[in-house]
Amino acid sequence: MPDPFSLGSVANIQTGLRALDIIGTVAFAMSGALLGVRKRFDLFGVLVLGCVTAVGGGAIRDTLTGNTPPLFLRDETYLWLAIAGSLTAFAFGTRLARFERAISLFDTLGLALFTATGALGATKLGLGPLGVSFAGMLSGVGGGIIRDLLAHEVPEVLYRRDQLYATAAAAGALAVYFLQGHLPQLGLQLSGAGVVIVIRFVSRRGWVKLPVRRLPDSSA
Amino acid sequence: MPDPFSLGSVANIQTGLRALDIIGTVAFAMSGALLGVRKRFDLFGVLVLGCVTAVGGGAIRDTLTGNTPPLFLRDETYLWLAIAGSLTAFAFGTRLARFERAISLFDTLGLALFTATGALGATKLGLGPLGVSFAGMLSGVGGGIIRDLLAHEVPEVLYRRDQLYATAAAAGALAVYFLQGHLPQLGLQLSGAGVVIVIRFVSRRGWVKLPVRRLPDSSA
Amino acid sequence: MPDPFSLGSVANIQTGLRALDIIGTVAFAMSGALLGVRKRFDLFGVLVLGCVTAVGGGAIRDTLTGNTPPLFLRDETYLWLAIAGSLTAFAFGTRLARFERAISLFDTLGLALFTATGALGATKLGLGPLGVSFAGMLSGVGGGIIRDLLAHEVPEVLYRRDQLYATAAAAGALAVYFLQGHLPQLGLQLSGAGVVIVIRFVSRRGWVKLPVRRLPDSSA
Repeated sequence: MPDPFSLGSVANIQTGLRALDIIGTVAFAMSGALLGVRKRFDLFGVLVLGCVTAVGGGAIRDTLTGNTPPLFLRDETYLWLAIAGSLTAFAFGTRLARFERAISLFDTLGLALFTATGALGATKLGLGPLGVSFAGMLSGVGGGIIRDLLAHEVPEVLYRRDQLYATAAAAGALAVYFLQGHLPQLGLQLSGAGVVIVIRFVSRRGWVKLPVRRLPDSSA
Repeated sequence: MPDPFSLGSVANIQTGLRALDIIGTVAFAMSGALLGVRKRFDLFGVLVLGCVTAVGGGAIRDTLTGNTPPLFLRDETYLWLAIAGSLTAFAFGTRLARFERAISLFDTLGLALFTATGALGATKLGLGPLGVSFAGMLSGVGGGIIRDLLAHEVPEVLYRRDQLYATAAAAGALAVYFLQGHLPQLGLQLSGAGVVIVIRFVSRRGWVKLPVRRLPDSSA
Repeated sequence: MPDPFSLGSVANIQTGLRALDIIGTVAFAMSGALLGVRKRFDLFGVLVLGCVTAVGGGAIRDTLTGNTPPLFLRDETYLWLAIAGSLTAFAFGTRLARFERAISLFDTLGLALFTATGALGATKLGLGPLGVSFAGMLSGVGGGIIRDLLAHEVPEVLYRRDQLYATAAAAGALAVYFLQGHLPQLGLQLSGAGVVIVIRFVSRRGWVKLPVRRLPDSSA
């Protein structure tokens, strides 16, 4: 796994962009694989859930933008990394005392990086602010949604009532939209991902909450 | 929101077609957002569920026909309308005494209009009767299926045992297929949507039912 | 339905490939329709579930490879066959004393044939071993996953803990990858499908099992 902290010094922008994509892939693979371990899937089930989580968002991004076959099928690196991340999660699963926290941490990292990559691709297609937000958000949350559907779990994306999740992704994608032209690609992607991570962090502290509509029968 | 009753007098066919697409978008957004309110999603969750319901059918239609990036990403109008419809549903949610009925009404309207649009697009690709039926039906029911999957509800499409739902969509799409060449585009779309609405209305009165296969253990 | 046992003598390779695709379509349609009957869907619901199961894997395969509109929309044969298979299952459903076994048998056949077709298509795109495995596996398991999601069942793909399912598909696809260039297309497809069927058969006897990770709280 590449060292995320060395990214500031990379000479080649493409390398930097790719490194972020790779970290997001491994992070999402571990999040999916850990859920599989918790649900007592066998080794291959854990692998599949890890891989699908890792490449799902990118597959949605590439399919929506007509970029077929999607990158993860053309470049074997992604699936190798997803397999490596999944196997690591399978191997060390029992030592992770708190599954929830580990899954959540990797999930946030994957969300942030994939949202930024998807938003960046959407700006290149000349999409407007809503299009970029939506495409970026789908790229970010797509893998997790597929993971939860396959694991027959309630999709976390919409149900984390106490936290901002899809909101964070949409905000990060919007940041990419408004900063385009002002920053180089790597800066754009890091800024978008940073917005997602900061919003996720702040919302988990309970500092920000979105309103929930009260229903007549519950407001009595 | 455009006035649906003025559609008969529109001079420009494209405007008419677009108006129908827009009404379907708002209707499906409200159906999705109301489900989100009922399930106590927060504001952004309601927005996302509304938008995904509104654009899901069109996204499936465009992806299947290779029309990428899908229209809803290229033309910001759709997402703005979906957001407006979702916010309206969020704001007035508590005053809607009967959620079920309101969701169902908007859902039928969205189903009818999206089925017709999808079927029309499929005829332009030169597809046969089954291809047009299936593509039209998927365009019509796709948004609702994605809505139900994300809300972790049993997909209504196949479970409304007392009503015709997907059947109505398939029949409407088939009408578009057989009427092509005999009617202008706007007429085709209105006819297809009309067939869907009539079948839905009739079936909700309980006048029409499809057979259910009895199982050995239940026929004793 | 074509006779699978006459396939060895077909003069025309294309006919052979197509015959396999057709058998897989009918088999998956029956698997989906039988699940619909068991869940007490009405006639049209059974038809839709049968058709979606039958064409789902191919739709995923074609969408991922940019082959739009997907084959099942362009060639009406597939939907006619899916309808015929679904109606047969609906008609004879009550006489099938053991639903589970029948669904499982047809499911294995569909899995094997669709995996092989998907893998073959992926090799033509020049994909690597992981890409071919993943694309083949998705083509094979896609229809069943969509079937289970629509029927609100736990997706069988990852939950059959006592059997190899997705593993069998991935192995069959990998066989297609490594045999390419050594066998003609029909041989490739039959080999890939054969690997899937053998692994499924062996694993159902309980001779092969994959490890499941023990969790701290369950290893006490």
